[in-house]
Amino acid sequence: MNTLKLEKKQEYTIVQMHRGKVNAIDHEMVQELRQVFRDIENDEAVKGVILSGQPHYFSAGLDLIELFRYNEKQINNFFRTFGALYLELAKFTKPFISAITGHAPAGGCVLAVTSDNRYMAEGEPYRIGLNEVAVNIQISQNLTEAYAFWMGSGLANRYILEGKLLTGSEAVSGGLVDLLVPLDQVVDHAEMKMQHYLKTDQEIWVNTKRKLRKHWHNKLDPDGQSSFKEAVTLWWKPEIRAKMEAHINSFSNKKKT
Amino acid sequence: MNTLKLEKKQEYTIVQMHRGKVNAIDHEMVQELRQVFRDIENDEAVKGVILSGQPHYFSAGLDLIELFRYNEKQINNFFRTFGALYLELAKFTKPFISAITGHAPAGGCVLAVTSDNRYMAEGEPYRIGLNEVAVNIQISQNLTEAYAFWMGSGLANRYILEGKLLTGSEAVSGGLVDLLVPLDQVVDHAEMKMQHYLKTDQEIWVNTKRKLRKHWHNKLDPDGQSSFKEAVTLWWKPEIRAKMEAHINSFSNKKKT
Amino acid sequence: MNTLKLEKKQEYTIVQMHRGKVNAIDHEMVQELRQVFRDIENDEAVKGVILSGQPHYFSAGLDLIELFRYNEKQINNFFRTFGALYLELAKFTKPFISAITGHAPAGGCVLAVTSDNRYMAEGEPYRIGLNEVAVNIQISQNLTEAYAFWMGSGLANRYILEGKLLTGSEAVSGGLVDLLVPLDQVVDHAEMKMQHYLKTDQEIWVNTKRKLRKHWHNKLDPDGQSSFKEAVTLWWKPEIRAKMEAHINSFSNKKKT
Repeated sequence: MNTLKLEKKQEYTIVQMHRGKVNAIDHEMVQELRQVFRDIENDEAVKGVILSGQPHYFSAGLDLIELFRYNEKQINNFFRTFGALYLELAKFTKPFISAITGHAPAGGCVLAVTSDNRYMAEGEPYRIGLNEVAVNIQISQNLTEAYAFWMGSGLANRYILEGKLLTGSEAVSGGLVDLLVPLDQVVDHAEMKMQHYLKTDQEIWVNTKRKLRKHWHNKLDPDGQSSFKEAVTLWWKPEIRAKMEAHINSFSNKKKT
Repeated sequence: MNTLKLEKKQEYTIVQMHRGKVNAIDHEMVQELRQVFRDIENDEAVKGVILSGQPHYFSAGLDLIELFRYNEKQINNFFRTFGALYLELAKFTKPFISAITGHAPAGGCVLAVTSDNRYMAEGEPYRIGLNEVAVNIQISQNLTEAYAFWMGSGLANRYILEGKLLTGSEAVSGGLVDLLVPLDQVVDHAEMKMQHYLKTDQEIWVNTKRKLRKHWHNKLDPDGQSSFKEAVTLWWKPEIRAKMEAHINSFSNKKKT
Repeated sequence: MNTLKLEKKQEYTIVQMHRGKVNAIDHEMVQELRQVFRDIENDEAVKGVILSGQPHYFSAGLDLIELFRYNEKQINNFFRTFGALYLELAKFTKPFISAITGHAPAGGCVLAVTSDNRYMAEGEPYRIGLNEVAVNIQISQNLTEAYAFWMGSGLANRYILEGKLLTGSEAVSGGLVDLLVPLDQVVDHAEMKMQHYLKTDQEIWVNTKRKLRKHWHNKLDPDGQSSFKEAVTLWWKPEIRAKMEAHINSFSNKKKT
C-alpha cells in the first residue's frame, strides 16, 4: 500500500489516506481503497472500518494536476474506477465511519458520503461538499443520490447547483456531518461510535443498514455508462479544459508560494 | 375492550391505551387496536381519531416480559398481527392524531409514526424512537419507511442504526414530533388540531392525505413475509435470546425496587 | 403581453407579473407565462429567467373572483392549462429564480416552487404556501411532489394538511425559501444568484439540474387527467361552492373598504 496506512484494532480497521499533505486522489489510491474495502468486507474477523485522512486534509479530492496530464485512455480508466469505488463503498455492508480530519471537497466528499457517520474537525477554514459544478466537472446521477439521501433533495439541489463548499456548521445543520469535534479527537469519536455499533448484534445491524439504504441502492446505476461518457466528453471540451488549466495553475502557484 | 378506553366526542373518538401503568403492547391490545381503527374507518359518523396513553407512558412498546414467554406459534402470530396493525394505521384515511403522554420507545413509537400529527408531553425524561437495534429486535423495512417519511432518510439512518431514543426536543427538531406541550395539555392540543381539520371539506382532506402518503404507501410491502421471517428467526437466535433475557431482568428488577 | 412585463438583460430575462395590485392569476396570465417560458427555453441567447411580482404581492394566487364566474368549459380549460404551466415550469431546463416580492399563497406558491431558488421579501405580513386545503381547492398529486422535493415529505405533509401559510422565517427554516431580503433587494439578490450560475459551464449546469430533478420529474403525471377530473368535480360540489362564495365575499368586501 503506497497511499494508505492501515491500523488494525481488535475488531475493526482504521484506514488512513496517506498521499502527501492533501491526500489528492489518483488512480493508485482509488485502486488501493477498492482493495482494502473488499478485503475488509470479506474478512469475518474485521467488523468495521474507519476512514481518516491527514491533519487539515481528509482529502483535497481528485488529483487534478495529475489527471490533467492523463491521456484519453487513462481518464476513461480513472473515471470508471472511481465510479466503481463509490458504488462499492455505498454498498459496503459493515459499520463504516468517516473521520474527516479537515478539508473534504469534491472527491474527498464523495468518499465521506458513502459512510454511515461523519465526524469532522471543527474550525472555520475546513470545508466539505460536492462542488463539482464550480470546478467544471460533471457530477454523476449516482453521486447526487448520496447528497439527497443525507440532506434531502431540496438542500442537495441548492448546494450542488451553486457548487458550494460547506463550512462544518453548515454541514451539520444540513445533515451531511454528524458532529464537529476538535481535530485531534476526530478519530477518537469515530472509534467511540464504532464501539457503540459493535456492542449490538451484528446480524441485526447489517440487516438494518441494508434496509435503510434500500432506496438509495435502488437508485444507483450499477453500470453508470451513460453518466461516465457524459463526464468524459465534457472533460475534453476545450472551454472546460482551458478553465481547468487556469484552476490548476491558480492552486499550483499558491502551493509554490 | 380490555386494553383500550374509548371516549366518543361529537365528531371524533379518543382512544386511550389502558393496559397498566406503562401500556406495554401484547397480542390482545394489538387486536383491540385493529378492531377499533377498523370500526372508525367504516363509521361515517366518526370523522377522526386521537390515540393517547397513560400519564408518563404513551406506550412502553412491546410487552417483552410476556412475549419472551410466547412459544413459536404465539410469536409468529404476534409479529404477523402487529405488522398488520402498522399497515392498517399507516393506511387509515381519516384525521388521526397522537397525543403522546410520555415515553414512546420502539413499539410505542411504531403506533405514533402512523398518525398525521404528534403532540408530545414536554419534559426531559420522556423519550421516543425506533430503538429496535438497541433492544435486539429486527426492525422491518416497512417501519424504516415511516421514519424516513417524517425525518428524511439521513436522520432515519443515523437514529435507527444507533438505536437512539430521542428527547422531545430532538424529536421536534428532527421532524418526528410536531410540538411539545405540558403533559396535561397533550390531549387538548390534539383535540384543537382535530377541530381545525374537521372545519375543512373532509372529501378534500382525505384525498389530500392519500396523495401525501402515496410514495410511503407504495414502498410498503403489504404482505411483509420475508421481513417477518427474518424477525422471527432472529428472535430465536440463542445469543439474542440471552441478551433479551438480561434486558428483561434489568427492567423487571427495576420495577420491583 | 397584457399580464407580464419583460426586461431583457444581457444574458437573462426578468419576467415581472403585472396584473393589478395583487397579481391574481387568470387564464390569460397562465397562457402568457407558458408562452414566455417556452420562448426563453428555445432562445439560445437567453440563458436564464427571473420571475418577479408587484411590491407586496408576488402573486395572490388564482383569481377566484374571476374563476368563480367561469362556466364548466372555462373551468376545465383553466385547470388543464394551469396544470400544464406547472409541468412546463418544473421541467424548464435553464436557471430560473423566483424573486418573491411579497405574498405568494396557493397559485402564487405553485409558480415559485418550480424555480431553482427563491428569494423572498422579509417582513412579518408576507406569507407563502400551498394552502389549498384551507381555500377548498383540491391540490393535485403533481403539486404535492414539489413541496416534498423542497421541504421533505414530513413537512409537506404537515403544512399541506393544515392548509398553512408560512411566514418567511418558517419558509426558510423548512427549506422552501432560500433567504429573506428587504423587499427592494429581492430582485437584486435573484440577479446576483443568476450571475453566479452564468459563470459556470452551462452545459454542466443544465445536466446537473436535470439529474437533481430526475426523481421529481419521474413522479409527475404528464397528463394529470385523473387529478384534473377530481379537482373539477370538487369545484362544482355545492357545499364547496357555497364556502368559496363566502370566501370570495370576505376578501371582496375587504377590498372595497
